[in-house]
Amino acid sequence: MIAPERPKARVRFDDERIDMSHGAGGKASRRLVEGLIAPAFANPILATLSDAAVMPFGGARAAMTADGYVIHPLQFPGGSIGELAVNGTVNDLAVSGARARALLATFVLEAGLPVATLRREVAAMAAAAERAGVAIVGGDTKVVEHGSCDGMFVTTFGFGEIDERANLDPRSVRPGDRVLLSGPIGDHGITILLARGELDIETNLRSDTRSVWPFVEALFATCPRGIRWMRDPTRGGVATSLNELARDARVAIALHEHTIPLHDHVRGACEILGLDPLHIANEGQFLAIVAPEDANAALAALRAVPGGEDAALIGDVRAEPLCTVLGVTGYGGTRNIDMLVGDPLPRIC
Amino acid sequence: MIAPERPKARVRFDDERIDMSHGAGGKASRRLVEGLIAPAFANPILATLSDAAVMPFGGARAAMTADGYVIHPLQFPGGSIGELAVNGTVNDLAVSGARARALLATFVLEAGLPVATLRREVAAMAAAAERAGVAIVGGDTKVVEHGSCDGMFVTTFGFGEIDERANLDPRSVRPGDRVLLSGPIGDHGITILLARGELDIETNLRSDTRSVWPFVEALFATCPRGIRWMRDPTRGGVATSLNELARDARVAIALHEHTIPLHDHVRGACEILGLDPLHIANEGQFLAIVAPEDANAALAALRAVPGGEDAALIGDVRAEPLCTVLGVTGYGGTRNIDMLVGDPLPRIC
Repeated sequence: MIAPERPKARVRFDDERIDMSHGAGGKASRRLVEGLIAPAFANPILATLSDAAVMPFGGARAAMTADGYVIHPLQFPGGSIGELAVNGTVNDLAVSGARARALLATFVLEAGLPVATLRREVAAMAAAAERAGVAIVGGDTKVVEHGSCDGMFVTTFGFGEIDERANLDPRSVRPGDRVLLSGPIGDHGITILLARGELDIETNLRSDTRSVWPFVEALFATCPRGIRWMRDPTRGGVATSLNELARDARVAIALHEHTIPLHDHVRGACEILGLDPLHIANEGQFLAIVAPEDANAALAALRAVPGGEDAALIGDVRAEPLCTVLGVTGYGGTRNIDMLVGDPLPRIC
Repeated sequence: MIAPERPKARVRFDDERIDMSHGAGGKASRRLVEGLIAPAFANPILATLSDAAVMPFGGARAAMTADGYVIHPLQFPGGSIGELAVNGTVNDLAVSGARARALLATFVLEAGLPVATLRREVAAMAAAAERAGVAIVGGDTKVVEHGSCDGMFVTTFGFGEIDERANLDPRSVRPGDRVLLSGPIGDHGITILLARGELDIETNLRSDTRSVWPFVEALFATCPRGIRWMRDPTRGGVATSLNELARDARVAIALHEHTIPLHDHVRGACEILGLDPLHIANEGQFLAIVAPEDANAALAALRAVPGGEDAALIGDVRAEPLCTVLGVTGYGGTRNIDMLVGDPLPRIC
């Protein structure tokens, strides 16, 4: 059963100046996209606002995605801008049900950038692409004056083919479905925060940047018909991704908060800063909504993938309250979990 | 007859810091790409270093291209960054023999940018895409702190299908072939220079930004088997594009300089500044190498396209001197025409 498309209320975007929150992946970003960009480019593919655009091509289904990377600092424990630029784009394809077939990469470089930095990042991209089994087949390089950009920005485009087993649609999500998560949340965002020296904490925390395609493939191999929706919860975190789903699918999502895997250092940093780990960006995790009868098999499949040992069943889909994410605490209380508002952690990807 | 692929000498790139010339599209850009980026990403598709990557997909041939746009100023007579970001990418597909099927657009925005500027550029992109008959189906938006980028940068990714009539290969270029040009050169580059107020000249010069697909389609309709190679001579101008071809095809190209269409204001500005119009960027022109027996029909076809009235036959391909572009003056003398060196006009796209 697929619910009929409902006419969406027109989003107003009356802000006068761009601020950091418009790039943070939360409410302000969504308003900018829905209120300004999407109406101007109006077309049925863009209107889905999914992680990748899908169109028929040559008898197959082509998936395309594009992402800009402006992370600061360029290097951090567990990764760097180049690695992120490959994995992030591979992952946007993966959660759309597509294996990456080709990437293109464009660079905006600041005059004065050490060539060694560029060389290092290009090597990181090549290595990440090889690990993900995809070739970087084209691109472009621009240079701007010293002071006109911050070191280097990278944009990558991903092209892939939708797996024939994929049958993803947020409108197929229904009450009773289960919410699966591939592993601990918040590692990436907190790693970046610490790499900037903004907190005087010593940890061995590392960014979780990686390709999530092995997880997607494991689910397709196990229960392709039971996988309704997937998303990599990057900017805005798990809370924002699930709020978007709740709204698009017109359901409620209940999270059993004590079941959500979380490293102690992430929990600690969030407590000190007053942040909710559910709003912190991840770069190598993914969420899946799975039919209830397939949930146990799907969870076992995720846990069998190297790096998926901490995968967890973290919630379920409910009929009400409409378009809402609820946190259920260990003691049975509930709280509303909203999308990210503002930008507590700028430039984390 | 297709010449066998020759092993290319390995290009060394030993520069220590990125400078503006690495983004100018001339010799330094080519060294950066051939000496640093392409070796790291090594794969057969990238190795062609053509305007678009081509790969089989489904039962068709997919073409993909990506370009970053960092032009300053954002608006100029005849166009703006948004229009350029659509047309430039549509044109890279067109000269590869592909009609654009979809675009994706990513933005890096500077905090503090007036939303009116973004709104205007998004509208310009939508209008250019509609004129070019292509939809913008996806993208991404990032925001960086005030001072970390210059207003806005746009990157577009283009996806298209290679026209079944296309049979382009620089290695099929042979002595006797003719060089066609779609119209006057240098308008874009000189317009940008004047828009910056760097020269106190009043002109009605306008950027030539437009989709060149109508020209490509006219050639395919007229003499598909006679079209060997096409290129839009943007950064580095006609001289750089033809030098790259001369090198890739291992031929000489002789240009009859007096036949090259050129507006008086472009000629005048170049004389004042000591620039060669053949090095100035164009955004709505294209070059084609055509079999001699098809040259007249091809030229007539270009002139019949609105905006192609000034198309001209500007030169011919010769066997020697290998890998060289020669200018033949009105008086029969010759000069070597080199690729662009340095960056006389930074950030023109």
